[in-house]
This record gives sequence, C-alpha cells and structure tokens, in this order.
Amino acid sequence: MNEEKKTGWRRFVRQVEPYVPGEQPKDKDVIKLNTNENPYPPAPGVFRAAAQFDAGRLPLYPAFPEQTELAQALADYYHIQKEELFIGVGSDDVLANAFQTFFNSDRPILFPDITYSFYSVWADLYRIPYERPALDENFRIRVEDYIRSDRKNASSNSVIACEKENSGNSAIACETGNFIAKKNEIGGIIFPNPNAPTSVAMEPEAVEEIIRLNPDVVVIVDEAYIDFGGTSVLPLIHKYDNLLVVQTFSKSRSMAGARIGFAMGNPELIAAMNAVKYSSNSYTLNSPSLAMGAAAVQDVAYFKETVQKIIRTRETAKARLAELGFTCLDSKANFLFVTHESIPAKEIFEYLKTKKIYVRYFAQPRIDNYLRITVGTEEQMEKLYRALGELVNC
Amino acid sequence: MNEEKKTGWRRFVRQVEPYVPGEQPKDKDVIKLNTNENPYPPAPGVFRAAAQFDAGRLPLYPAFPEQTELAQALADYYHIQKEELFIGVGSDDVLANAFQTFFNSDRPILFPDITYSFYSVWADLYRIPYERPALDENFRIRVEDYIRSDRKNASSNSVIACEKENSGNSAIACETGNFIAKKNEIGGIIFPNPNAPTSVAMEPEAVEEIIRLNPDVVVIVDEAYIDFGGTSVLPLIHKYDNLLVVQTFSKSRSMAGARIGFAMGNPELIAAMNAVKYSSNSYTLNSPSLAMGAAAVQDVAYFKETVQKIIRTRETAKARLAELGFTCLDSKANFLFVTHESIPAKEIFEYLKTKKIYVRYFAQPRIDNYLRITVGTEEQMEKLYRALGELVNC
Repeated sequence: MNEEKKTGWRRFVRQVEPYVPGEQPKDKDVIKLNTNENPYPPAPGVFRAAAQFDAGRLPLYPAFPEQTELAQALADYYHIQKEELFIGVGSDDVLANAFQTFFNSDRPILFPDITYSFYSVWADLYRIPYERPALDENFRIRVEDYIRSDRKNASSNSVIACEKENSGNSAIACETGNFIAKKNEIGGIIFPNPNAPTSVAMEPEAVEEIIRLNPDVVVIVDEAYIDFGGTSVLPLIHKYDNLLVVQTFSKSRSMAGARIGFAMGNPELIAAMNAVKYSSNSYTLNSPSLAMGAAAVQDVAYFKETVQKIIRTRETAKARLAELGFTCLDSKANFLFVTHESIPAKEIFEYLKTKKIYVRYFAQPRIDNYLRITVGTEEQMEKLYRALGELVNC
Repeated sequence: MNEEKKTGWRRFVRQVEPYVPGEQPKDKDVIKLNTNENPYPPAPGVFRAAAQFDAGRLPLYPAFPEQTELAQALADYYHIQKEELFIGVGSDDVLANAFQTFFNSDRPILFPDITYSFYSVWADLYRIPYERPALDENFRIRVEDYIRSDRKNASSNSVIACEKENSGNSAIACETGNFIAKKNEIGGIIFPNPNAPTSVAMEPEAVEEIIRLNPDVVVIVDEAYIDFGGTSVLPLIHKYDNLLVVQTFSKSRSMAGARIGFAMGNPELIAAMNAVKYSSNSYTLNSPSLAMGAAAVQDVAYFKETVQKIIRTRETAKARLAELGFTCLDSKANFLFVTHESIPAKEIFEYLKTKKIYVRYFAQPRIDNYLRITVGTEEQMEKLYRALGELVNC
C-alpha cells in the first residue's frame, strides 16, 4: 500500500520487512539441505519423554523454564549456575529478547555485513541503529572493526598486526574498516561464531579480544553452530560481565521442532532478560518441549556421536565437492558455503531444485555466487554429489 | 540499582516492571484456584495426539501455524478463512504482537483502570502511551469513555442514555469519563470481554458501539473467557475492518500447558501481524502443540460438555458463597470475583492459603477487598465452601 494513501488505523500499523525463512517443501521426497536442520533423530530419551508425556498435565500452565529439569540438565552439562541461564522458544526468541534488553540506546550496534539475516530485521523492528562492518575478502570477521580507536593500544596481536599490514598501500581498506571505531560510539555487538551463512569460525582469542575491549557494551556471541567444531567462549562468562553466549537445540541436538534456545551469561544479564521476558509472555515454553529438552541434554554420548557423524560427513563433502570444481570455505558448522569455478550459484540452485534437492541461495551482494548446503546424511549427500556430477560433466 | 550510578553496558539495559503471575505451588495437595486454569483434562483426542506424536519429526522446523491442521480446524469451527486467523504461543504472545503491530503511534491507547494487568506492562515495554478510563461503580465498562466526543451524536442508546443521566447532578462523573474523548485522540482500544479480574461481560451491542465509533483505530477484544457464557463479537470481523478478536486454548480448552492463542480479524490485520511475527521469530509453535491443538478443536462435543460443567459449578458456587456472606459479581467467566460482608479479602486469602487453597488477591486500589476464585471441580469447590464455612462461622 502506498505510504501517502494510508488513513485511519492503517497509519498506526507497524511496517516491517519480514525475514524470509528457507522453503519448507511439502513433497516428502525432497532432500532438504536448505535450513541447516540435523538429519539425525533426537536422542532415544527424547522418544521416551514424548511417549511418556501426560496430556493430563496440559490444563496447568507450564513451569517456568528456569525451574525445570531442563534448566538443571543444562546447568549440569555446561557447569554453570541456573541463575546464569535463560531459556526461550528457540534461539530466535532468545536473541530477539537480548536485542530488546541490551541494545536499548541510540548508539549503533555492530554486526557483520554478511551474517544471520535476522539481526537487521530485529534491529529494524526495535528501532535500534546499526552498522555493518564488512567481512574481509576471505569472509572473516576483522576484529579491529569492532574495537574503538581509542582502545586499540590496549589490544593485542590481531589488531596490531592489522595496523602494520595496513601501514602501506592497503591503508584505505583499514580506514573503511574503522568507520565506527573513530566515532567511539558503539551500542552493542553481535555476531555468530561460526558465522552464518559463511560457516567460518573465529579463534576464541579473537572473540575474547572483542569482549575485553568493549567492557561498556554487551557482546552477544551467537553460537548456534558451535558444537560442530568451533571453540565456545562460554568459560569467559565468568571473566567478563558483558558477555552473553546464545545456543540452540535446533542444530546439534536435532530438535528444531521443539523450539528451545538458551543464553548463558552473568546473573545480572540473565535477570535483565527475564524481566523483559516476563513483561511480554510469562509462559512460553510448553510442557512437552520442556520434558523432551531435558532428555536430549542428558544423553551426552548420543549427542557427541551425532555431532561427530555430521563433522565426518562434512569433511568428506569438502573433498567430494572439490573434485567437482567447488571451493568450500573452512566450515566449522553443519553446513558448507560453496562456490563453483565455472557454473553460477543460482544456476546450480535452480538445477538442484529440479532434482528435488533443496539448498539455500542468497541473492545478496558479495555472496550471490555461493550456495549454503546443509550437511545431510551420507546417503543424502551421495545423491547430491551424483546430481552435481551430472551437471558438471554434461 | 540506583539510576544515577549506572555505567557501562548497564546504561543501555531496558528497565521494566515485570508482570507477576499467580503462584505455582510445588505442593501437589494444593487446590489451585488462583490462575484460572481449567480443572478438567483436555479432550480425549489430545491424549491420542500426544501418544502418537513422532519425536522423529523433531529435527525439522515446525510447519508455519497457518498451514497446519490446527489452522484448518479453527477455520472450520469458527467459520472463517485461514487468512483471517493468526496463531501464537498463548494469547499473551498474540496480544503482545498486536500491541506492537497496531498501537504504533504517539496517541494514547485506552483500556480500563481495572483489567488484565499485562496491558500496561506491554504498553510500558513498547513505549505506547495509555490512559485508563475507570470502570463504573458496578465494575462495568462505560462505553462513552471509549468514544471521541465529536462522534457521540453518531452513537445510539447507551451513550445517549449516559448523557441524559448526567445532565443533572452527576455531571462531574461524566466529565471525568470524557477526559480522553475531548482530546479526540485515541491510538487504539483494548479490553477483555468478559473483563478480568472482574468476570463481568459486556453486551455485544455495547462492544459493537465501541468498534463502530472508532473506525480509525484498531479495537482489540480479548475474549480469553468468552466461552463461559459471554457473547463473542467474532461475526463482526466481517463487518468492521478495525476489529481484532483474540481467544486462547488456556481456559475453555484445558490446554494452558500447550501455549496456544489466536486472533481473528480481516486478512489485512492478520497479514500485518504475521509480518511483525516473522520479524521476530519465524517458528514459535512447536510440533507437539500444533498436533494436540488440532485434536482439541475437533472434539466439539467434549468442549461444550466441559464448558457447561464449569458454568454449572459457577452458578452453584454463587449461591453457596452468598450463603456464606459473599457478594459475587455476575460472572460470565471461569472464575468469580467476590467480596465478603465482614471479613477483609486479604485475611480470607491468607487463611485459605493455610488450608492449602490458593485463590488470587490483588493489592490494588478499588479491588483490594475482592478475591478472584477460579471455578474448580465440584469436589474442589466443596473443600473451598467447607474451609470458608469454618472461617465465617468461627
């Protein structure tokens, strides 16, 4: 509807650009490698918890998540106190809450130009200003872009190295990278580690640098994919009071359908999130999810085994795709971010769809010649290689 | 923490007054008449849906609610199109979304001084200005308080009657009631019907008056308790494009633990809500809830039977409580709002707690001598009468 023509109640309706999630095809034959779901079932205990769930409990409001067996299981597994844990309806719910709770100023928050596309959507929804430092040419986060210029002296190797590198011809690139740092105004920082859709992980030392040199804003590290080979900065929540680590059950724990995400940080951060949460919906996680989630966390052996299977398949996939002319970024996630030496990504995307294999294509600057391919089962991946082989060799 | 002393990231943390929900005692012997839960189990089909739920579906993100069997079941039952239906994680989620979506102006929204306490919490959270016209001395919503003064001529009996009544001595009361109407500035309207915690319902003609005379703002009618004897204005969504009707599975459908609420309105309102929803969390309702919710709606006979049982118990309770010296407002909900002729409400509340019977007490102006008592099973209510009899007759 045209902006000028709005009258009556339409004037007061919030205008937003909604996030467009990956397609959910109804055709059961489709091989879904487009939404980073886990191809393996959840732990056997989850099936038992589902079977044992008593619908006779449904008339009662669910327990508060922080008082449940799920919270205890997470606290035990991650060696934290329950007061350091916030649980929500998937990590999207947790992250949206964290944006509302911590990015409540007129200063721009920072996140990469190429990253999880919901960050800009939430920032728009909650009217939070933001700026997006560009990833480097290898799709890596440049630590120096997240550090105020007046604090650079306090920073260690990575930043100093950057400044030395840029002392010569490439000074312009560094200038661009520093656009925020010069203003000395940052409202908050968020990035995924590993980043999505690039799959690239940062070293924990680099993440710590960003946290350490931004003590006056909250730094959210979105570790949705951390279990697939990255190094979590979770231990740092006891060292830095401005660090919030967010994880999810949707990927490594095979439970996207249960909608469970969680944040870990010092009790003051968690209390602030709970205050906001109890201001919008006191009861969010439902009773069946709470029961099944606890069972998932308790089976550590199954969790590790599933994650290892996916990592092995991913490493095989890198080699197989390379044989077919693809370049894969160094993935620490349950997906690969790939580009082909001669065939445009969009063409491959469309072709795979005709073969009933769904992958993700982003029509965005810098990455419009890449595909994001979720790591499926060995069997699903074999079908992918076969289909790609037919395309490449025809 | 003291406001002046905040430094660093604490400056940017959102400050909210969280809503305090009713107590959830861990003691299983407690008779819970404090959170308006349904004392009866959900429909038999819900137990079957729970038993048949396949945890093997959990690795996949849940379907979008509007594309599920649940949406189809609701559309069939309420004789609406799926495009007129929005489904969320309990009606709190739906209402919070509606506040964000439709009350997006600097004009104050209106809701009663005594009503569901989350309205002011959401308004504060989303920085929406509001004013709260007072219920009349019988705890009834005064229609004229929700109508701009320049539109009163267009209004029918109820408002005209008020103005006639107030032409004499009681003119001051009417002036007070018109404080907003004079400004001719309303940003939106929300009220529950029946109202909570008063239990009093409005006639549908009075609700229509408010909708009809406010065509330029969205009017949200929160019908959480409508199935217990009130008359829904749902048919009016086809007559007025500014009407949103919100209902829930937590009360009449015995499924507070499943977290399902829904809104019905014209497709343009619903599309606006979906845009905001997909901007904060694409996947909210989880797979088990979607399956169990559909089963609940499909069993119409069980639904009607359960609701009738609660209505019968409520009417008995009114008589029994009257014998004990209580006055009950005319409830059309699954709870009673009562006051005693001689014993202060707070004292009764504390006494019942010692007897392991939990009811709700609000330490608020105008209602601090009232108790909100959820209608339980006949057996639970007999225990309540017995305990109250001991107090009153001792």
